[in-house]
Amino acid sequence: MSSTPHTLINEKELYAALREGDVPKLSAMLSDCPAKTASALMGRLHREHRALLYRTLPKDTAVETFDDLDATLKADLLGGLLAPEVTAVFEEMDPDDRAELLDELPASVATRLLAGLSEDERELTGIVLGYPEGSIGRRMSPELITLHPNMTVQAALEAVTKHLDNAESIYTLPVVESDRRLAGVLSLRDLMRAPANELLANLMQPADLAVAHESAEEAARRCADRKHLALPIVDREHRLVGLLTVDDALQILEDANAEDQARMGGAEPLRRPYLATPIVEIVRSRVVWLLVLAVGATLTVQVLQAFEDTISQMVVLSMFVPLLIGTGGNTGNQAATTVTRALAVGDVHNRDVGKVLLREVRVGALLGVLLGALGFVIAGLFYGWDVGAVIGLTLTAICTLAATVGGGMPMVAKKLGIDPAVFANPFITTLVDASGLIVYFLIAKAVLGI
Amino acid sequence: MSSTPHTLINEKELYAALREGDVPKLSAMLSDCPAKTASALMGRLHREHRALLYRTLPKDTAVETFDDLDATLKADLLGGLLAPEVTAVFEEMDPDDRAELLDELPASVATRLLAGLSEDERELTGIVLGYPEGSIGRRMSPELITLHPNMTVQAALEAVTKHLDNAESIYTLPVVESDRRLAGVLSLRDLMRAPANELLANLMQPADLAVAHESAEEAARRCADRKHLALPIVDREHRLVGLLTVDDALQILEDANAEDQARMGGAEPLRRPYLATPIVEIVRSRVVWLLVLAVGATLTVQVLQAFEDTISQMVVLSMFVPLLIGTGGNTGNQAATTVTRALAVGDVHNRDVGKVLLREVRVGALLGVLLGALGFVIAGLFYGWDVGAVIGLTLTAICTLAATVGGGMPMVAKKLGIDPAVFANPFITTLVDASGLIVYFLIAKAVLGI
Repeated sequence: MSSTPHTLINEKELYAALREGDVPKLSAMLSDCPAKTASALMGRLHREHRALLYRTLPKDTAVETFDDLDATLKADLLGGLLAPEVTAVFEEMDPDDRAELLDELPASVATRLLAGLSEDERELTGIVLGYPEGSIGRRMSPELITLHPNMTVQAALEAVTKHLDNAESIYTLPVVESDRRLAGVLSLRDLMRAPANELLANLMQPADLAVAHESAEEAARRCADRKHLALPIVDREHRLVGLLTVDDALQILEDANAEDQARMGGAEPLRRPYLATPIVEIVRSRVVWLLVLAVGATLTVQVLQAFEDTISQMVVLSMFVPLLIGTGGNTGNQAATTVTRALAVGDVHNRDVGKVLLREVRVGALLGVLLGALGFVIAGLFYGWDVGAVIGLTLTAICTLAATVGGGMPMVAKKLGIDPAVFANPFITTLVDASGLIVYFLIAKAVLGI
Repeated sequence: MSSTPHTLINEKELYAALREGDVPKLSAMLSDCPAKTASALMGRLHREHRALLYRTLPKDTAVETFDDLDATLKADLLGGLLAPEVTAVFEEMDPDDRAELLDELPASVATRLLAGLSEDERELTGIVLGYPEGSIGRRMSPELITLHPNMTVQAALEAVTKHLDNAESIYTLPVVESDRRLAGVLSLRDLMRAPANELLANLMQPADLAVAHESAEEAARRCADRKHLALPIVDREHRLVGLLTVDDALQILEDANAEDQARMGGAEPLRRPYLATPIVEIVRSRVVWLLVLAVGATLTVQVLQAFEDTISQMVVLSMFVPLLIGTGGNTGNQAATTVTRALAVGDVHNRDVGKVLLREVRVGALLGVLLGALGFVIAGLFYGWDVGAVIGLTLTAICTLAATVGGGMPMVAKKLGIDPAVFANPFITTLVDASGLIVYFLIAKAVLGI
């Protein structure tokens, strides 16, 4: 729901009508509005305006629009709907989407909604809800077509044709033994290509799969990397329990990327589209990290206080502080970003910590020598060669230190089971700032003899 | 190719065998190695070791492994293969993968390889190569099943069955008029569900599509957001020229995310998996940005020099410099990260610049007041209330300034047609550092009367 609303709706007029609560005008404007446009618009509005817009949509468009929204926006909307409307909408959802929505709702509302479901749908939802949050079991579709190895191709095609409406994916077909243990997979393409009386046992392929308790992100990445349209999900006894379709995998990966990016920028991810998020929510997503980092930064005040005499004797030293710690921060960020990404996509594993540190020390030292040489010449020309030497040596030391810390921290975080992105850039900057200043003044005292 | 190699191969032993060039031992170790494992391993090796490993793989595994690699690693490998091997591998590739590989090769090699192709394959590759780099035309598959609106369902199913082998996707079926203009799309599911003698004209749906000249990232995002398994690609005359499949869309989005993350960390993205990238390449991906930022940071030296007298009179002021500019940098990063992401996923558009600035001013001011109040109390207690007032006021001003600049820069970049991520975090930090220092010393002079 995040692409350009390709529409003839005049957004300015629409906003005006929303502000004025002019329902007849809204109805007229929205009568032909496609659902994709409506859901994109909803991602750009305040909460109350979203509810108003939604209630003005033609009935069919409204159902489709609801389906298209993120779980958080769905939950926002439910409060604005009448009970029978809610029940109708809830019954229509896919079990995995329903489970996601339930997570966003107060427990009392969730229980009431579940109770209102038809038995079939409640059972399917129950399967999904049985797995822990963040696991792939929560995001899979439990609606399956069941094929067996001793079926013929013709029987399989008939089974598929019969279930065209209610199975999430018909293009990747898991085959199970009589005890529901996964035997293999077949693509619809392979099925269509095979002779009608061939047995599935002779056609099916060994399946890439995920266990329902596994992390959703890892399972999604496996689905994407191996280019599957769907990945069978099994329980710990290897019994088939669901299917992860590629569109859900994609959504999971996008959410994970959004989270990583936000955390690397020193904030928690927003749970709604930017323009639909209240200002207070945005402040909340940022203030905790900002405070933690500011408290961390008081370390630099203490370091500088410890070297107050040195600074008093040579005020010129204080002028290079932002440049030096800035360069250290940048070098650390670069290393942290690269390693965090490599961990996220699986290019680097926990056991590679030695390799990574070795690489980053070398990269940092090389960068440090390059920048240090330049710093020596430039600072030397303007402030004298002794100051130049201090700056050059400090840059070399700081770059080496920063790249090593920057590359190492995400590995440490991962090993401790913390999201590597949390420990990333701003955190490393603060750490490198304080230690870089100590290095700087120690070098200055040694070289300048003060 | 980036998931854990789920394999019984002992990596240590393998590395030793590679270092020693022990081909018989390698052959024995790799005889049962699945292609996915081999390609994952190759992403962790130096270039020469990759070539050695590849040449030791059983023939069938080798072909599949090659297919599985990124274009850059493919290009690395070609140098280590014999001419007939290269020709065979090249003929087997999909036209879009082939075009991607050609971009990585020297022109002379590319021309020679193209000349060696069969006529059909050369023609298909030519279609893809006709579109500019970065466009979706370059990444689409030109192999299509052609259906017409006046065909019956039965005829369509026969056409599909006949092309099961060489059409990239059979699950999303574009329907074209006799002049090849796109009329609509059909899913295989809809086709299987419909009566045999129904005309496609009555079944097909209006198509979401992309124009071949459009940016690959935008088209891929459309495919993903709208949850399509494939997106028809048309030329400027609305004639069908190819299909973007969801697995390719996913790869494009992952690459775009990797690029955004690297740039937000102040580096260019690596073109190979981290462990497979030579140290010199890593240095190269970072050194230019580091230099640019260091040169930018000399601004801070000049600002501090301008206030040298103020610092000499009150050395204590210099102690808060890292904390203040650090907090400014963090606030700017948070805003820039959020807005860059919102732009990338389409939650925010160019025209929203006013809305974004208004939001960030308010968020920044709120954060600034919170942090400023805290800073006033803490600095006041330790260094006197006049210093506390300077720190509190400066924090408020810097946070407001930083959030506004941080939120605004990505919008400006986008408007100028520059990747918003390039202008992001480290760049903003440098800018906010210098202006924050000016604000700081002006406030200090006013409050302290020096």
